[in-house]
Amino acid sequence: MPLFSDPSVGIADPLLRRAYIVAERGRGTVSPNPLVGCVVARDGRVVAEGHHARAGGPHAEVVALDAAGPGARGADVYVTLEPCDHHGRTPPCTERLLAEGVASVTIGMRDPDTSVSGGGAERLAAGGVRVRFADDPGPFRAQNEAWLTRLVHRRPFVRVKAALTLDARPALSAGTRSAITSSGGRDVTMRLRAESTAIMVGAGTVDVDDPILTARGPLEEHAARTPRRYVLARTSLPAPGARVFQTPPECAAVIASGAADPDALETLRNAGVRVIGYPADGGILAALEALAADGVDDVLVEPGPRLMTALVESEVIDELVTITAGGLGGDEAPAWYTGPITGAAERLVPLFVPIESGIVGTDVVTVWRTVVGSPSGIGKGSALRCSLV
Amino acid sequence: MPLFSDPSVGIADPLLRRAYIVAERGRGTVSPNPLVGCVVARDGRVVAEGHHARAGGPHAEVVALDAAGPGARGADVYVTLEPCDHHGRTPPCTERLLAEGVASVTIGMRDPDTSVSGGGAERLAAGGVRVRFADDPGPFRAQNEAWLTRLVHRRPFVRVKAALTLDARPALSAGTRSAITSSGGRDVTMRLRAESTAIMVGAGTVDVDDPILTARGPLEEHAARTPRRYVLARTSLPAPGARVFQTPPECAAVIASGAADPDALETLRNAGVRVIGYPADGGILAALEALAADGVDDVLVEPGPRLMTALVESEVIDELVTITAGGLGGDEAPAWYTGPITGAAERLVPLFVPIESGIVGTDVVTVWRTVVGSPSGIGKGSALRCSLV
Repeated sequence: MPLFSDPSVGIADPLLRRAYIVAERGRGTVSPNPLVGCVVARDGRVVAEGHHARAGGPHAEVVALDAAGPGARGADVYVTLEPCDHHGRTPPCTERLLAEGVASVTIGMRDPDTSVSGGGAERLAAGGVRVRFADDPGPFRAQNEAWLTRLVHRRPFVRVKAALTLDARPALSAGTRSAITSSGGRDVTMRLRAESTAIMVGAGTVDVDDPILTARGPLEEHAARTPRRYVLARTSLPAPGARVFQTPPECAAVIASGAADPDALETLRNAGVRVIGYPADGGILAALEALAADGVDDVLVEPGPRLMTALVESEVIDELVTITAGGLGGDEAPAWYTGPITGAAERLVPLFVPIESGIVGTDVVTVWRTVVGSPSGIGKGSALRCSLV
Repeated sequence: MPLFSDPSVGIADPLLRRAYIVAERGRGTVSPNPLVGCVVARDGRVVAEGHHARAGGPHAEVVALDAAGPGARGADVYVTLEPCDHHGRTPPCTERLLAEGVASVTIGMRDPDTSVSGGGAERLAAGGVRVRFADDPGPFRAQNEAWLTRLVHRRPFVRVKAALTLDARPALSAGTRSAITSSGGRDVTMRLRAESTAIMVGAGTVDVDDPILTARGPLEEHAARTPRRYVLARTSLPAPGARVFQTPPECAAVIASGAADPDALETLRNAGVRVIGYPADGGILAALEALAADGVDDVLVEPGPRLMTALVESEVIDELVTITAGGLGGDEAPAWYTGPITGAAERLVPLFVPIESGIVGTDVVTVWRTVVGSPSGIGKGSALRCSLV
């Protein structure tokens, strides 16, 4: 997810670009469904628009057509994702578009879900609607990268956030809650949380920091979104009284390894904490698959050193956001990553390449992407993921 | 020194801006003199231009007036620094400007050197020349920040460069020469070297890396500039056969603490290595004062962990350039900084604030400036320096 640039500037058609922007309103709430935006236009001017807000709610096309009313007849429709042609929780959008008598439908990207792929566009064309696809589906695939990741890999898109000192220390003292970044850096954290479907931390972080993990911050809209919060318990379990389970408790859960102590799990459950299990021998990938099965397309992980090292070694990081402050922690402060060198002693091999870097407040914020086909073996599952973007 | 932006865009007058750009040609060679550029114009069009290339060489005004010839009579002159009005190694520029009969002189900034300050402009005005100053001297002060630093602090402007892994390791294994950054990051290093008057490393780096420390790289002009190279010997001395002393030897020297072994110093001298001493109890600041006395206004330090820690603790870093690659070194790799936390365990105190950050190749390059009046005490001598910029 670019933090400093707007991917929609690459969309040549202004009404299709508008549909992209409208679709963004669903970010953070729409999972496990894709983001979709729809614009109904006449003579190049917007008549109505709509977005898909949450699974089970009306599709973007339906919202826009409802808003357009009789104005939909003979109109031009712009939609970011190919309209569905199957009966799911809602009737097919193709039927509705045909019933309204729209003149044309311009589509950002094909639906790769095999249950509808191709069918929607062909059905519309067979019904006499002019159907056109965007020349470049890239921005639309990037917009739904998380959804596509789960479709292909059966696990969520994994974004890791790290607030670091200039010498890359994630904390200033083991076992102490440390404030590293400026208010600018904290605003970035809040934005990342607000735009994520779920946030995950390790049980160790809950022990030390006892974070609430809500999206607070300067933007009103952030406050209205409470991402689902997950505590990954690979070895030890978090305390049932931790703050993450309090506000609001229905959105928090523990992802517990099958090796966890059954009595301790029972204590958590008795305290009203939802527990999701995963097979211990499946490692972090199995935990992420459990997250996907719980309806999560994208997760923001805010790991401590142990979880960070495990995420690198499990090769499951899709994107890394570093927020670096200008102070120094020194070598008594905990290391961020405790695994082996990536590469050899003579030559470093990059696992990540930067795609954006900028200054926010007094911190440097950089978005890094996993290198595809890195000699370290990192990113072996990323080729398709990245080719989608 | 900004790497991504052009400070001259802030100069409203296009001919004065041109003088600024012309002055830049002297960067890296002009020390211990200031950068100066001069444009001779008529009816708003450039007739001739010149810059000050090196101490002892002609001043920018003389170069430009020589090139203008008879075209200087009645012309408008633009010069980045107030023309000198004293007999130094060359006659006063004011006399020459008056003799040529120029109509006006527009000046970027006053000369703060008390031996000429104010005098040049007043002398010209008394001679019937229209004299005008730039509304904002900021860009011109920034251009000569190094020269101003030495004028005020009697030490060079200290820029530190660090090539780091994503987890801020400056090397991958103690005692091994490591390639960390991409070719993009190495190009930045070469540019920093080419634009510096001097480069300094610790004796430990010479032992491990045996660097040549010349400015190689894609830009032809870089190859033409060989900055002076200094090896700081605080505890141990470098080997006389080190490559830094070979090519070309007349530009390299050892800055040796007074506590160094006299026999080992004699061995160095016998091998043709120039040795500059500094009082051991004066620490790094004394070594930098010795550098200034050797005619160095600005120095690029490429420190190993020990020197980096000493530089932070000595509070002498003016600018820090980090070049960060996307690989991880792990906690077995050397730490970059081994001093205490800046701040407390609960809250980091920044020593540096970022002024620019961008992507070069697959590395992130960030320019940091020392925080003025940081609670750590860092930058206590920086208030004037920064107010000059």
